[in-house]
Amino acid sequence: MNPADVKACVFDVFGTLVDWRGGVAREAAAFLQRHGRSAQEAGTFADAWRARYQPAMERVRSGERAFMKLDMLHRENLEEVLSEFGIDRAQVQAAELDDLNLAWHRLDPWPDTVEGLTRLKSRYIIAPNSNGNIRLMIDMAKHGRLPWDAILGAEVARAYKPTPDAYLRTVDVLMLSPAEVCMVAAHNSDLEHGAAQTTDLKPEGNWDWVARDLVDLAKQLGV
Amino acid sequence: MNPADVKACVFDVFGTLVDWRGGVAREAAAFLQRHGRSAQEAGTFADAWRARYQPAMERVRSGERAFMKLDMLHRENLEEVLSEFGIDRAQVQAAELDDLNLAWHRLDPWPDTVEGLTRLKSRYIIAPNSNGNIRLMIDMAKHGRLPWDAILGAEVARAYKPTPDAYLRTVDVLMLSPAEVCMVAAHNSDLEHGAAQTTDLKPEGNWDWVARDLVDLAKQLGV
Repeated sequence: MNPADVKACVFDVFGTLVDWRGGVAREAAAFLQRHGRSAQEAGTFADAWRARYQPAMERVRSGERAFMKLDMLHRENLEEVLSEFGIDRAQVQAAELDDLNLAWHRLDPWPDTVEGLTRLKSRYIIAPNSNGNIRLMIDMAKHGRLPWDAILGAEVARAYKPTPDAYLRTVDVLMLSPAEVCMVAAHNSDLEHGAAQTTDLKPEGNWDWVARDLVDLAKQLGV
Repeated sequence: MNPADVKACVFDVFGTLVDWRGGVAREAAAFLQRHGRSAQEAGTFADAWRARYQPAMERVRSGERAFMKLDMLHRENLEEVLSEFGIDRAQVQAAELDDLNLAWHRLDPWPDTVEGLTRLKSRYIIAPNSNGNIRLMIDMAKHGRLPWDAILGAEVARAYKPTPDAYLRTVDVLMLSPAEVCMVAAHNSDLEHGAAQTTDLKPEGNWDWVARDLVDLAKQLGV
């Protein structure tokens, strides 16, 4: 990939740009305490919720289910996590679960995110290419002041990553070729293992650029 | 419509937020002069190009053609306008037409547009709900510094206004009800008649708010 060819940078979001584990755990802690449980379980709760993320999308990717917004998959998964944690669903108001589901809309950016995006935006089109739905990405951007040029990703492409359509339709919408679009992600596989992390401590794979953070990426691209 | 219910404002763009006639005529003037014609014809050229806009979309709305980006319809229409103006297509490079087609990406905002959008953005989700495709709207926003939260409209909805789907799918993406989304437009039918305007000098229709400009709209909504 030639840096001079790049016209747009599109981004993985959960884990790469925002702290999903910390944000979800923060809201889960309050929820757990309201239901007579310990806030100490919040990290485990966040991990259990996230563990259902790929299997839920896989049912869409495989064609078993029609495409639906990630918010809806998160909401279904949340019901299952309650059950897994032995919380009596009948004791929880639907509105409270709806609100907890919006924890994903209120995730905080990492310290380098806004500066890095702002630098990259000065030269490139910047957009999320996330599995998160459009409204989720709008709310998150307003919450964290992410300066997107557009909200792209699964709901526009009607396909979940990592299916090829999820990338190629984003490139089509941008009216660019794949060689003109830089996909920015923290993969191995989006990290965020929590404090006990022992794996994914260095990049794997033959990437065009490997950067310490987004500001470093911007510098490597000469912005 | 109750102002307290409004969560998002979505906008018509051509005519309402940007000066399509002036912008297209400016680039058409240079094009016409390069091809031995008078810059005086530029306004007529812009009008002739725009006159093919609704008929081209109608072929999509009616189902005669599959959905395609407005950029592609503009490009086809441009070829027809050349013929209408007696310009020999064989004498014009495709790249020159491709560039002239991008005149729609470089339209200037009206004087009230950026201030009005910025005020409205402080309380509401703001997004175009235009027939223009996503890349067109991205380029226009970067050119004119339009502070969108997201790019919605025909390409996301896969439907051209004024079909109901073009509005209802935008509302669905926003996860709101129609009563929570304010559609902002200069209709009667998007004005921009040029200097000879004699019609559409006052609003027709039973609108929730009628405003002098976007800043006035923001004030009426209490922003």
